[in-house]
Amino acid sequence: MHRIPVGVLGASGYAGRELCALVAGHPQFELVFATANERRGDRLVLPSGDITFVATDDAPLQKSELVFSSLPHGASAEWVARARSAGARVVDLSSDLRPGHAREDVPYGLTELHRDDLKDAPLIANPGCYPTAILLGLAPVIQQELTVPGALIVADAASGVTGAGNSPRADMLFGEVSENFRAYSVGNEHRHLPEMRATISRLCGDVDLLFTPHLLPVARGILATITVPVTAIPDDLLEPWRRAYADEPFIELSNDLPSIKDVVRRNVVRIAVRRVSGVRQPTLLVFAAIDNLVKGAAGQAVQNANVSFRFPEPMGLPA
Amino acid sequence: MHRIPVGVLGASGYAGRELCALVAGHPQFELVFATANERRGDRLVLPSGDITFVATDDAPLQKSELVFSSLPHGASAEWVARARSAGARVVDLSSDLRPGHAREDVPYGLTELHRDDLKDAPLIANPGCYPTAILLGLAPVIQQELTVPGALIVADAASGVTGAGNSPRADMLFGEVSENFRAYSVGNEHRHLPEMRATISRLCGDVDLLFTPHLLPVARGILATITVPVTAIPDDLLEPWRRAYADEPFIELSNDLPSIKDVVRRNVVRIAVRRVSGVRQPTLLVFAAIDNLVKGAAGQAVQNANVSFRFPEPMGLPA
Amino acid sequence: MHRIPVGVLGASGYAGRELCALVAGHPQFELVFATANERRGDRLVLPSGDITFVATDDAPLQKSELVFSSLPHGASAEWVARARSAGARVVDLSSDLRPGHAREDVPYGLTELHRDDLKDAPLIANPGCYPTAILLGLAPVIQQELTVPGALIVADAASGVTGAGNSPRADMLFGEVSENFRAYSVGNEHRHLPEMRATISRLCGDVDLLFTPHLLPVARGILATITVPVTAIPDDLLEPWRRAYADEPFIELSNDLPSIKDVVRRNVVRIAVRRVSGVRQPTLLVFAAIDNLVKGAAGQAVQNANVSFRFPEPMGLPA
Amino acid sequence: MHRIPVGVLGASGYAGRELCALVAGHPQFELVFATANERRGDRLVLPSGDITFVATDDAPLQKSELVFSSLPHGASAEWVARARSAGARVVDLSSDLRPGHAREDVPYGLTELHRDDLKDAPLIANPGCYPTAILLGLAPVIQQELTVPGALIVADAASGVTGAGNSPRADMLFGEVSENFRAYSVGNEHRHLPEMRATISRLCGDVDLLFTPHLLPVARGILATITVPVTAIPDDLLEPWRRAYADEPFIELSNDLPSIKDVVRRNVVRIAVRRVSGVRQPTLLVFAAIDNLVKGAAGQAVQNANVSFRFPEPMGLPA
Repeated sequence: MHRIPVGVLGASGYAGRELCALVAGHPQFELVFATANERRGDRLVLPSGDITFVATDDAPLQKSELVFSSLPHGASAEWVARARSAGARVVDLSSDLRPGHAREDVPYGLTELHRDDLKDAPLIANPGCYPTAILLGLAPVIQQELTVPGALIVADAASGVTGAGNSPRADMLFGEVSENFRAYSVGNEHRHLPEMRATISRLCGDVDLLFTPHLLPVARGILATITVPVTAIPDDLLEPWRRAYADEPFIELSNDLPSIKDVVRRNVVRIAVRRVSGVRQPTLLVFAAIDNLVKGAAGQAVQNANVSFRFPEPMGLPA
Repeated sequence: MHRIPVGVLGASGYAGRELCALVAGHPQFELVFATANERRGDRLVLPSGDITFVATDDAPLQKSELVFSSLPHGASAEWVARARSAGARVVDLSSDLRPGHAREDVPYGLTELHRDDLKDAPLIANPGCYPTAILLGLAPVIQQELTVPGALIVADAASGVTGAGNSPRADMLFGEVSENFRAYSVGNEHRHLPEMRATISRLCGDVDLLFTPHLLPVARGILATITVPVTAIPDDLLEPWRRAYADEPFIELSNDLPSIKDVVRRNVVRIAVRRVSGVRQPTLLVFAAIDNLVKGAAGQAVQNANVSFRFPEPMGLPA
Repeated sequence: MHRIPVGVLGASGYAGRELCALVAGHPQFELVFATANERRGDRLVLPSGDITFVATDDAPLQKSELVFSSLPHGASAEWVARARSAGARVVDLSSDLRPGHAREDVPYGLTELHRDDLKDAPLIANPGCYPTAILLGLAPVIQQELTVPGALIVADAASGVTGAGNSPRADMLFGEVSENFRAYSVGNEHRHLPEMRATISRLCGDVDLLFTPHLLPVARGILATITVPVTAIPDDLLEPWRRAYADEPFIELSNDLPSIKDVVRRNVVRIAVRRVSGVRQPTLLVFAAIDNLVKGAAGQAVQNANVSFRFPEPMGLPA
Repeated sequence: MHRIPVGVLGASGYAGRELCALVAGHPQFELVFATANERRGDRLVLPSGDITFVATDDAPLQKSELVFSSLPHGASAEWVARARSAGARVVDLSSDLRPGHAREDVPYGLTELHRDDLKDAPLIANPGCYPTAILLGLAPVIQQELTVPGALIVADAASGVTGAGNSPRADMLFGEVSENFRAYSVGNEHRHLPEMRATISRLCGDVDLLFTPHLLPVARGILATITVPVTAIPDDLLEPWRRAYADEPFIELSNDLPSIKDVVRRNVVRIAVRRVSGVRQPTLLVFAAIDNLVKGAAGQAVQNANVSFRFPEPMGLPA
């Protein structure tokens, strides 16, 4: 049986390794190369057999029909172009090609919202981890015009450390992160803001967004707590989400509040909704949890590749 | 030298033990009894010499001039009354006597806001941990009328597990809390809401409050991230806080974002403020960090006792 | 296709839930009941479809051809007998039927050592987690008579908290375990000693064993550090292990020191060996790492069931 | 009142910062400089007032009467010599001057064993963290000749990450250390071996030592589990330790097994002893716990400085 030869650029980071494992376990994919400049020559142990990292400059792009780029922001765009020139379809996990950044013509792979744009797509901009949780949590109320026009949506979110990669950094040492909690990139300064704003705008949402990320002492997972002023509280709180996400394999609507443990190592977003009592402005609280490395990165990238190649969307993915 | 004989009711919990340690190290206090029903007979090791837990029913209230009650909510009020009858001044760490609950005449020991009410006070209701962080963070903008009338203030906060006490609970096992994060008591259902609302109301604040607590995989510490719609952004962001808190020994105003590690084991609240860019409604982000067991419980209780007895406020407290 | 109907007794503990997940994902098994007295009526979400816990007294034993018992020590033996009477094969994860305890005729499911005894076996005593790591690490040097007769083997081991189950216990609260480390059941008092001694004795090992377990602030995993006085240091340190474990699918011999992260969520034991310099008695250090819930409990139980039913040993297991 | 002017070289590491805090709180010391090359110009916040880091080359050595060097191994010796030339007494926390390394004439500051050598000493080699725990645990049985001649003592120990410093290292990232446990520097390859061997030799111990360190997912603390073959088991297990350590302020002999939490942020070693059942060779298990940054580094350094200056040994130290 022919399997699609796949390459992974930037494979030694947390997301890159997750990608290699997913590709190696995918029934229609075959991992043919994985690049990692600083670790070139090292072997990556995979259930399907080991692979040796090569330098990115030595990536045999022409051997692959599909390339995932997990290169750093800024460095990825050039390699995406090379892989495209070599004839491969590309899913880019960096922010370089996402909406709100340089180009607006690359399909944005928030699969559940843009599935039709992704079929046969030769190039897909994979969403950031925070936008995946926040936009999938928010989209139904915006699409269904439940939000108060001009209102401020407050999205406080907290992420595990793998979102920051595995390069040595003093502020990510165990001794600094353990028993600690702090916000960062606050005041709407985070790199993920543009793609969230652009997506809300495409959904015709007339709302402002305030996004405040925090660093959790956990390895994986994001929980977003989103405050949404609405014109009226739905009788059945989850109904807007059920309507938007009927038959979605990777959306879990829950009556219980989601926790990070509920979603770790799974390609899902888990969503719960609560009303707020004792306030004048009708307000909903939306909670959305994902694994930042799976639905927030490598899992969604494979999901998008599945859509591009018209494979069943859940193929090779842990639900 | 005469030292004030002090008793601690409910001394085997996390806050109770912190109280015993602070009392034992306080130059004007002497720990004369500590009660713990389930651990009666056990010794508590203290730098000043060990003390043996007695059952609460056996507390020699008449021996003490000051009693701290760290008994559970609901059970505390009765013992507070007994200690008062025995002639002791009382600082009650439970929610029983706080504003928004049954009585409104007991001084509320958010020291920096109500210091004058606490001098010589025979009975003080010590604030909850979350209200300490959130109210001290918010008070300056409310007092100085910077908030938008009728606006919703969103206070997302996260706390370490010691806030939930040390009784056996399946959901507080290491295997459940580690590598996890979740919200709880959401939708304004948390027991700390009434005292926050009552305090804001006393400050004449015409705002609504949405408070969403989260459980962190850390032992100690609270970080509150508070979104405040304001009529205008101050030129000097920290100026309202500097004006409100001049010469306060336990308020730290910081240009850097506060983290839990900054405040652990210290009787301080550390506050930073940021403006929000890219939104139509002028909005401030206020960050406030405390140690939930120190400034959020035992430390503030001692601070309040110091005020009551007209000792220097920092006496016996770690800054 | 007929799949073997499987029941799990005591399914709400950490090992029981792991068993249910493995059974649900096993191509030849079908989960027909799962018991959990305190959580009866609750649903367990599984990829293959949800299952509702029933009380153990209501277990439809006659519907199953295979039963895994994850009931507590002491309570398990009775239910094992009932399941056997109902005609099911049984893998018992408790210590009740292990060597060194009451009976000596039940095959001991340390698969790699006793595979032949397990084929078609109607009843298998699944090993404890610590014995799995320590005995698989030690067996080659004992079988190949490399140990010094009469010598003391020192096995220090550390385990994650899931080894202690998920019943509420004050000493297993996050606030107690986090940032802590301690030994327990020391001086050869641990319940896993008898099965280790009995197994060493069956291997004709003339050695004494000192086993000291420690509690780690991690959820899963065991690392054993074993000091073995030997008659001579092998030229090729790993050679005795390679000889003993040729073609074993779940034994990983490593030149690098194993860590818990290497083995978590996998049904393997990972072993490395080092010589000790600067001591008179030739001495080997053997390191063995497992996931206590997989190779140390549920995974090995499924491995043993596979052997009993003569399925391929790795069927349904994560390697 | 004259206070002794003190400088700290290498003050931005974990031990260096602990030293600065202890010096700042010491009634007879005054911190006059603190060096940190990469963080020069940064302020270190201390209760006694802030201090600004200077480059080590700019250290005003002549202003100080006491210098603590927390510089890296290899780099420290040169600066110790300069500080001595400038007339200051020096406590060196590096391994450069410890027994078993280059010189044998510098007093080794394992205070409880070598107190008499330290009085008025102008230069003291402060012990490593592991040797502090292991040697204080072992010394009584060696001094009192309870060990079996020629026997192998097995010291397995585990340390928190602050023992490795706060320079950026990929293997010390939270994502790598959390939920993990591993040995390192095994087979007697650790840098702390020489000082342990030399000290045992000075105590006339005819024993071999096997030391295996492990990395714990905690910030602070060391627990050593030490297996000691003895000629006979004492009737009263702790008696040898009580005899050796009568009236020691910083040695805690305990009937309960020590845990890291028992000793964190305190300048103590906590020791418990157990007999081993079911083995032919009489064997004791000695457990010793310390805070690696306090009794294992900065605290013991201050303790040694107190002895040198003939101050009360506990002055300025948390017990």
